[in-house]
Amino acid sequence: MSKIFIDACFGKETPYTPVWMMRQAGRYLAEYMKVRAEAGSFLDLCHDPKRAAQVTLQPLDIVGVDAAILFSDILVVPDEMGMDLSFVGGEGPKFSDPIRTQADLDRLIGGEEVADKLTYVYEAIRILREQLDARGDEKALIGFTGAPWTLATYMIEGEGSKTYAISKKMLYANPTLLHSILAKVTEVVKYYLEKQIQAGVDAVQIFDSWASAIEPSRYDEFSWKYMVEIAEYIKSKYPHIPVILFPKGVTAFIERGLVYGNFDVFGVDWGTPMALAKAKLGERYVLQGNMEPFRLYSVEATTACVEALQNIMEGKRHIFNLGHGILPDVPVENAKHFVRECQRVSKIDI
Amino acid sequence: MSKIFIDACFGKETPYTPVWMMRQAGRYLAEYMKVRAEAGSFLDLCHDPKRAAQVTLQPLDIVGVDAAILFSDILVVPDEMGMDLSFVGGEGPKFSDPIRTQADLDRLIGGEEVADKLTYVYEAIRILREQLDARGDEKALIGFTGAPWTLATYMIEGEGSKTYAISKKMLYANPTLLHSILAKVTEVVKYYLEKQIQAGVDAVQIFDSWASAIEPSRYDEFSWKYMVEIAEYIKSKYPHIPVILFPKGVTAFIERGLVYGNFDVFGVDWGTPMALAKAKLGERYVLQGNMEPFRLYSVEATTACVEALQNIMEGKRHIFNLGHGILPDVPVENAKHFVRECQRVSKIDI
Repeated sequence: MSKIFIDACFGKETPYTPVWMMRQAGRYLAEYMKVRAEAGSFLDLCHDPKRAAQVTLQPLDIVGVDAAILFSDILVVPDEMGMDLSFVGGEGPKFSDPIRTQADLDRLIGGEEVADKLTYVYEAIRILREQLDARGDEKALIGFTGAPWTLATYMIEGEGSKTYAISKKMLYANPTLLHSILAKVTEVVKYYLEKQIQAGVDAVQIFDSWASAIEPSRYDEFSWKYMVEIAEYIKSKYPHIPVILFPKGVTAFIERGLVYGNFDVFGVDWGTPMALAKAKLGERYVLQGNMEPFRLYSVEATTACVEALQNIMEGKRHIFNLGHGILPDVPVENAKHFVRECQRVSKIDI
Repeated sequence: MSKIFIDACFGKETPYTPVWMMRQAGRYLAEYMKVRAEAGSFLDLCHDPKRAAQVTLQPLDIVGVDAAILFSDILVVPDEMGMDLSFVGGEGPKFSDPIRTQADLDRLIGGEEVADKLTYVYEAIRILREQLDARGDEKALIGFTGAPWTLATYMIEGEGSKTYAISKKMLYANPTLLHSILAKVTEVVKYYLEKQIQAGVDAVQIFDSWASAIEPSRYDEFSWKYMVEIAEYIKSKYPHIPVILFPKGVTAFIERGLVYGNFDVFGVDWGTPMALAKAKLGERYVLQGNMEPFRLYSVEATTACVEALQNIMEGKRHIFNLGHGILPDVPVENAKHFVRECQRVSKIDI
């Protein structure tokens, strides 16, 4: 059966513009909180294929989005490289031994060996594939990974950071070490996405959540080229699988005409005007995004943005989404309103 | 005596392009750390006019910059409005009672009454004015304030924030309250800058450090127009005083052609390419910035950036600076190298 989301990723005409939300399987859903409580910690839920599959499907049924994105966390990759991930209550992720030297990096395992350890992810995908096929509907399943730069910042800082001070210092003072880290992560991520595809995802997205931490003139060298390398690897082996790249906060990189690579969909963050993204990228890539997630606190602001996006994109080569993840305290009714509005404004009467 | 920095702010030809660094009176200087230790806490140093004046002058003599910026903190304004500022060790600023309702806001004092309480700031300026005049050199003294939006985020969140979640939720869900906060802060800030000028500063800068938290299509409504209102007030009464606006992280706002207002210098953050800023703003405003501060960890990366900026700006309508504050662990030799390089590449042989 033809999936509207996959068709849209390839720029084909669809009955309406599909919509999903980053972090849509999350805390704004009471149903998610229930399963999360049963599972234990956040990381326990990531490691529990049945429950991960369960929360992955919730937004399809509750909110009505057109694609499911696998419930997981980008940091399972460095964790399985040997970095001892933990989530300290209310404070976010921690790695006990951050990577600051070549010797630190050499202690980590790499390549396919790491990808082979992420069995709980592939098991969740297999469960989801079976359930989605059994439903017989047109919903797609998206797999994902963090971009090498974003993963590297956590590995180097040892935790989430506001300034990325150690990573950025390394970028200028020891670029060789940073490239070694990025290359090792890139190798793992290629295998990781490939095994997600083999387990059954319909599309993959690479999240460069901390892209904005790198100045525009260095972004290609320290992040984008690695994302493109991964995309090229996937597209050469699995041309029927759409690849979505989402670098958050790269308006200048787009404006300067520096975006290149073999992939299908460009995710537009909320800080980049959609009209600018369309002018610079719209002919080469399908555009996904870009509503400011805080607009979901107001139904009026949500409708205004959905209508503006529809006016700019005209229902062509576009996938509705937020420009970053949905916030944990958004009323679920407002999320439903967003999805309904996207489908309403873009529906083609035939 | 003609001051090279002030001449440059008005677009006049100067013997070389002047340079200073945001947060130049700071922890990377051993001499600063000594005075800071004598003063007590960071806030004690802000409240101590003699020592504040002392650290303000240090970068002139040690690093060789062309302008001094008053040592102070943007949060003295909400503190004097009645918000009980404290700096919790290592964690940054805290306000015990954040502003979440109109009643919270109504409890704060406003207008000239607040500006009149900031006597320690004006006393530091008077000391500096006397000392700078006695030196008889060409160094300028810059006064400053936080922009209403940036100050409001601290007042609403109650502390520094990575997501500005409460402020941004208010922007969409209760814009009326947010505008009330912004209007009250704007009123105070007008008087505050005016009194800094009366005490003796040569120029003023408004820092909108968290400009990037607002989506481009709403930035004017919730921040820029208030900055312009303050600038207009100052320019109408003190046309000989240059006004510098520095909104950090507004590449799209610049690119869309949305910048307007009566002021002299636009501060360009490190995320906005200087060539873009020049193309969009260079004829209307003198441009200040925009080196990525982390480049200071590498003398090669510093020189490369200084030369690139000189090539773009050609020594015209430009002031060298960083695109954000200098980091606390930058080697002072590297800061000196930056200043020397700016003066070297831009020197006019006459």
